[in-house]
Amino acid sequence: MKTLPFADETILSWVETHPTPFHVYDEAAIVVNARRLKAAFAWNKGFHEYFAVKAAPNPHLMALLKKEGFGSDCSSLPELLLAEAVGNTGENIMFTSNDTPQEEFAKARELGAIINLDDITHLDFLEKSTGSLPELLCCRCNPGPLKGGNAIIGKPEEAKYGFTREQLFEAYARMKAKGVKRFGLHTMEASHELSAQYIIDTAKLLFDLVAEISEKIGITFDFVNIGGGIGIPYRPEQDAMDLEAVGKGIEEAYKEKILARGLPELKLYMECGRCITGPYGYLVAKVRHIKDTYRLYAGLDACMANLMRPALYGAYHHITAIGQKGDLAKDRTTRKVYDVTGSLCENNDKFAIQRELPELKPADTVVIHDAGAHGHAMGFNYNGKLRSAEYLLKPDGSLVQIRRAETIADYFATLSYPGLKEG
Amino acid sequence: MKTLPFADETILSWVETHPTPFHVYDEAAIVVNARRLKAAFAWNKGFHEYFAVKAAPNPHLMALLKKEGFGSDCSSLPELLLAEAVGNTGENIMFTSNDTPQEEFAKARELGAIINLDDITHLDFLEKSTGSLPELLCCRCNPGPLKGGNAIIGKPEEAKYGFTREQLFEAYARMKAKGVKRFGLHTMEASHELSAQYIIDTAKLLFDLVAEISEKIGITFDFVNIGGGIGIPYRPEQDAMDLEAVGKGIEEAYKEKILARGLPELKLYMECGRCITGPYGYLVAKVRHIKDTYRLYAGLDACMANLMRPALYGAYHHITAIGQKGDLAKDRTTRKVYDVTGSLCENNDKFAIQRELPELKPADTVVIHDAGAHGHAMGFNYNGKLRSAEYLLKPDGSLVQIRRAETIADYFATLSYPGLKEG
Repeated sequence: MKTLPFADETILSWVETHPTPFHVYDEAAIVVNARRLKAAFAWNKGFHEYFAVKAAPNPHLMALLKKEGFGSDCSSLPELLLAEAVGNTGENIMFTSNDTPQEEFAKARELGAIINLDDITHLDFLEKSTGSLPELLCCRCNPGPLKGGNAIIGKPEEAKYGFTREQLFEAYARMKAKGVKRFGLHTMEASHELSAQYIIDTAKLLFDLVAEISEKIGITFDFVNIGGGIGIPYRPEQDAMDLEAVGKGIEEAYKEKILARGLPELKLYMECGRCITGPYGYLVAKVRHIKDTYRLYAGLDACMANLMRPALYGAYHHITAIGQKGDLAKDRTTRKVYDVTGSLCENNDKFAIQRELPELKPADTVVIHDAGAHGHAMGFNYNGKLRSAEYLLKPDGSLVQIRRAETIADYFATLSYPGLKEG
Repeated sequence: MKTLPFADETILSWVETHPTPFHVYDEAAIVVNARRLKAAFAWNKGFHEYFAVKAAPNPHLMALLKKEGFGSDCSSLPELLLAEAVGNTGENIMFTSNDTPQEEFAKARELGAIINLDDITHLDFLEKSTGSLPELLCCRCNPGPLKGGNAIIGKPEEAKYGFTREQLFEAYARMKAKGVKRFGLHTMEASHELSAQYIIDTAKLLFDLVAEISEKIGITFDFVNIGGGIGIPYRPEQDAMDLEAVGKGIEEAYKEKILARGLPELKLYMECGRCITGPYGYLVAKVRHIKDTYRLYAGLDACMANLMRPALYGAYHHITAIGQKGDLAKDRTTRKVYDVTGSLCENNDKFAIQRELPELKPADTVVIHDAGAHGHAMGFNYNGKLRSAEYLLKPDGSLVQIRRAETIADYFATLSYPGLKEG
């Protein structure tokens, strides 16, 4: 069952004064959810979540999560700057990048971020780029054929990320020899995974590796970062990941594989993005046109530029029809089957294909669910489309703009063409 | 066989002074190709190509094509403004949009653009939005089950575009009754099609429709717009569309289906994008890292933000390894198989999968072919990636910047966060 954190009348008053489409994030729900994640892992004294900035790179959301104690998982220079902008520095940043340029390692060092190396050659590259190695370093493990694949991220051995098992041993030995004092181990081999067991198995794999590397190389690990990849129930019939079961399962594995082996306490880190903001962000749009040809189409004022997942992955996003003042969609008796489209000249610019909804009319407001992660973040300007504004719904019911909509001036910002018109 | 319009030494001198990645377009080749298209259709006195702006929305490229007599095919307000910026107005603009907002129809009317209606309801919507109907109007035909699908654009009857056959008759009758004087008929039901016959069949279908509608409704058509959709040979073993054969085939159909029926002369319009600039644009990048895990990876400084087609469609783009000063890749005796990747935290951010290339080294320059259409245009800022600069290679060998690279300030332009750092 999909619900909305606002009444129909509330959203209808918003769209009167705020041009659609726009994204709105539910602060109260994000906070509740953040606390739930922390509670599920409270057994681990060092537990730390680094919010995957790429999912929703908005400093206001990052600041909100920082108040809940979350750090920033960054993958590029602009994302490091976003973290810095909200005051996340030092070990509140995990810099997990791949194919990393020199200047990004330099900025990560300047901020004191935890650097998570993606490749064994980056050890030398980092040292050369920044003149030294930091006291704390982490390596990204690619379990390869040891671990079955996840449907979205693919088979680990075909993934570009991380070290092979053999390279990990070599790398930690070299790091130790080079004077690195503290160590982390990371993996991220799921995307949008809904099985608790898959996440627990990932933690087990890392705990075993920690034990083996600790023993063979003679080092002590500060933390393991089990990555993110926790999915969300896009479809009404799906269940959310049981975070408490994940916490419990990992706790048991931790006792068995770390404590029972007499290994020192280990901090558990995560870098979730989707499950932190995804379900709590909504794309609000209006119906522009109803079209009846070989199918029935509801054309929205939103398009792929606002939410690309349906077009890109064929992903399901639930849609709630609100209707309009004095004519709420839920009161309409007729239901019809629509392709809900955007205005891009790409036939895959559809938010839903053959979806049954209450009968829709032009000027109706609709809400697209689960747009809070990898939504606005993936927007492009193809077809001259402009990216929309983002708002935060505060616990007191007020709406605060946290990103302005793009303007035509933004679209033209990188262009200069004096005299072109005259030929 | 894929060739480059510049010598290895030339491009190696460019990358010394121009930060990679960047796109470069070959002016001379674009002009030759534009003239070839015009020559193939010279039999039609009114032939007019409207360059599909969405393919490469750069005013400098549009101005170059304008000199060759090409108009602009626009799908949105920013694209109309680009056309206006290069002095393309009036019937030099074809406004082919779908799910169109009021303000875009208004701007199209203001510019005197040819309006191509996507839906029968837009007739009233246009009249209401702009106070009147223009003298000239065009309708987009969706042939539905009459025409087999194209692999990329899908089956026409599942496509959101255009009028059904029945709606066309109704629409032209209503337009005539409302005083519209001149008429056009459009379809676009292919994307990246390499068969000449498919394009010829499309023209035949439109010619037959023109004859039937002219007779039944008692109107005369000014033009048919057969759309674009002409593919390009992304793979070295593929052949380019035989434009001359297309021209000849359509000429024969025109004689048979228009002239032999005693119908008045008809202007033939096209709205090609991909085949106009696609093969003549190159994405120039450097190898950042070579990584050897379960596969061999060559990580570039370019990523999906610069060219999304391989990740989005699994599309093939040919890659030529240039190498570096004093060590040209073509002189290297060893060849290896690489996944050529970008730095996005998306495993599908790969320009090539298991591609054999001369052995690559960090700092090597590589050129990705056929990036001149739907390349830069589709770029996004996901993962904090910035879109690159565009250059025009002039016939005299000079390199002119036609779009600056995005900066971090551009990335932050829609954000405002005073005091956020202090929490």
